[in-house]
Amino acid sequence: MFRALVLALVFVGGIVADPQLTNDLVRIKPERVLSVLEKLGEIGKTPDGGVSRVAFSDADIEGRRYFMKLMKEAGLAVRVDTAGNIIGRREGSVAGLPPIVLGSHLDSVPNGGKYDGALGAVAGLECASVLKETGLVLRHPLEAVIFTNEEGGLIGSKAMAGALNAKTLDVVSQNGKTVRDGMAAVGGDPGRLAEAVRAKGDIAAYLEIHIEQGGVLEERGVPIGVVEGIVGIARWDIMVEGFANHAGTTPMKERRDALLAAAELITAVNRIVTAMPGRQVGTVGRIKAEPGAVNVIPGKVEMSLELRDLDADKVRTLIERIRGEAAAVAARTGTKIGFAAIEERTLPALTDERIGRIIEDAARELGLASHRMPSGAGHDAQSIAGIAPIGMIFVPSVGGISHSPLEFSKAEDIEKGVSVLLKALFRVDML
Amino acid sequence: MFRALVLALVFVGGIVADPQLTNDLVRIKPERVLSVLEKLGEIGKTPDGGVSRVAFSDADIEGRRYFMKLMKEAGLAVRVDTAGNIIGRREGSVAGLPPIVLGSHLDSVPNGGKYDGALGAVAGLECASVLKETGLVLRHPLEAVIFTNEEGGLIGSKAMAGALNAKTLDVVSQNGKTVRDGMAAVGGDPGRLAEAVRAKGDIAAYLEIHIEQGGVLEERGVPIGVVEGIVGIARWDIMVEGFANHAGTTPMKERRDALLAAAELITAVNRIVTAMPGRQVGTVGRIKAEPGAVNVIPGKVEMSLELRDLDADKVRTLIERIRGEAAAVAARTGTKIGFAAIEERTLPALTDERIGRIIEDAARELGLASHRMPSGAGHDAQSIAGIAPIGMIFVPSVGGISHSPLEFSKAEDIEKGVSVLLKALFRVDML
Repeated sequence: MFRALVLALVFVGGIVADPQLTNDLVRIKPERVLSVLEKLGEIGKTPDGGVSRVAFSDADIEGRRYFMKLMKEAGLAVRVDTAGNIIGRREGSVAGLPPIVLGSHLDSVPNGGKYDGALGAVAGLECASVLKETGLVLRHPLEAVIFTNEEGGLIGSKAMAGALNAKTLDVVSQNGKTVRDGMAAVGGDPGRLAEAVRAKGDIAAYLEIHIEQGGVLEERGVPIGVVEGIVGIARWDIMVEGFANHAGTTPMKERRDALLAAAELITAVNRIVTAMPGRQVGTVGRIKAEPGAVNVIPGKVEMSLELRDLDADKVRTLIERIRGEAAAVAARTGTKIGFAAIEERTLPALTDERIGRIIEDAARELGLASHRMPSGAGHDAQSIAGIAPIGMIFVPSVGGISHSPLEFSKAEDIEKGVSVLLKALFRVDML
Repeated sequence: MFRALVLALVFVGGIVADPQLTNDLVRIKPERVLSVLEKLGEIGKTPDGGVSRVAFSDADIEGRRYFMKLMKEAGLAVRVDTAGNIIGRREGSVAGLPPIVLGSHLDSVPNGGKYDGALGAVAGLECASVLKETGLVLRHPLEAVIFTNEEGGLIGSKAMAGALNAKTLDVVSQNGKTVRDGMAAVGGDPGRLAEAVRAKGDIAAYLEIHIEQGGVLEERGVPIGVVEGIVGIARWDIMVEGFANHAGTTPMKERRDALLAAAELITAVNRIVTAMPGRQVGTVGRIKAEPGAVNVIPGKVEMSLELRDLDADKVRTLIERIRGEAAAVAARTGTKIGFAAIEERTLPALTDERIGRIIEDAARELGLASHRMPSGAGHDAQSIAGIAPIGMIFVPSVGGISHSPLEFSKAEDIEKGVSVLLKALFRVDML
């Protein structure tokens, strides 16, 4: 330890970091991380302690402004790309190397929590602050990136990966603005999106730390999740057409009850998804029955179906079985059942095997248990997976809750997660 | 036939009607019935050919005003009781006899059809017109009654039967007015409702003709339905409480999916209701899942349950079985399922056996087939059943459709139905 201390002191001011050296000396300041998280949580705070910092809202813009100030204080050169992504950059020591990107987002769902996105943003900032304070210089440039409108469909990261569908610019986002107008409002230039695109090779590696948003780590008592990949998401609008009729005068056998058919299909989705071994999930989250009166047999039901898995083939198999069951339900209930795919299908994105091992090693050196797992939620990392090797770290979510004012991660787990990120950053820099 | 003609001519001007005599000579004028139905259909007409004459609306008030004019032209003495019911009265020949009431309603559901209620109103008017034109006088007084706000819960007829819950006056009806304010707006006096109440014995008999609102008569090719009774209606709000969570990160086995539980219960309701022999019906017409997002497991579902049958005991058995199944579903899905009874429970109301036979006989004499059946829909007759013997006639609904712009009954069936009503009226007068 003494030797390391001497080396650190001697080399302050411009020497490439030695990952061995950083083991003990270069540490994050957890109180700073928590303090910035708290301050961000005040921006867009809701009465029940949640956060509404919906992309392109005043709160989002205020949060971005505040965060850019912090980035500058951490010694980063800050710019906003044409997609509205905030990029804070610290140059590296080896000329010509592409940057290592630490990405996340500041926007939230309506009445969400203060950890989703913000944790990754603050963690990237903390890494930059530690580098500035210690004077250590990575071989690669470091970029801390705040992606535009993650919750609205990974907008900024898709733009950076060159994967943003032009039509998406016309989509009206939660805030009420179109994506195009929102990008312009946060300093982007949606007419020149091509300038925000990075090609394969433009990013050396991408790291992201995020709350798990599920209860797996907490249940296992493991503080570090090593993400194997981000599941693909496929979504459908399901339309069930029956015939609306009087609930008193229409005999049971003459009904074409759209809600009964929908109910049979919902139970079938659950049966089909759980019948297959693996971690795939299937959800009907939205349902609307028309006319929706206590005394009228529903004539029409619209509902959503979402399937997620790391294996796109498995999702295809599942939807085939569900459609087959839907045909049987329709025949049995005298209804028609149609499926319309919604949004661009998100393909599964696997993380880089080497980066995964680096994260596991970093955790082990810090004396922390880790657990390999898929990410059931979407993240900017999956956009960037198309152009760069990615790695993701999860920290436990208490109760598995997210997208809620009840979203919470313990201070000790946040400290562990950011510490693993910093250690992994130094090791990835050596790749 | 010749003898009858002579008698009719001789007795015009004040002689008690002879039901045998009226067989051939005293006939309704179908073109008049259809014409008034058409004119009523213009009041509150919607762009798609439906009718919105919701109780207490401007259209309802206009319809009532128009109808009172027609009642006066048909020789009826018209008054509005304190519940807002329109009563058109023709005195009888035997002093002290209570009236025979021909009841119906003019209010409609939003965007309903032009036959529901209006047919009965016009039929009662036609009977009065025929009596006036022929000069025949019944033994009993005749009252053609338009009940207030039938679609809002049999309001006017419950008031007449002394069965209106005082709290109902505060209920906000479709039109936006409270029942109390609505009654006042149509000429009633809700502070003096007791004056509208009739006691047992105050009504000699009650007859109502209505469209079937189901497809049974059409399917059987029978023009006249003889209603055995109006089914009891029991309704519940069902609340399913699970836990809202992220649809990507929450493994299937850790979910407490309120919509999955609701779907299992909906299929169970159908299975339980159809497993028992009989004509009972059970319907889940309304459902709401929260938060209702494609990517969130529903944490809460509210839905309605309605059971109808002529036998109250059967309804009790059904709900016991459904509650038992709900407990099993809740245990299996990790949810809580609660039932809250809504509205006043409507008990089954049986029609009078003698009146039923009279209607059958009347149909037979006119060469018309008839079919005994329950009414699955609620009608003012069921309120009046508490204080008087009732009879109901159904005419076929094309396609079984009602409460819809598509609601339609054929002119020939309307003629048959109103003819049976008139003939039955003469026979009931002889009881």
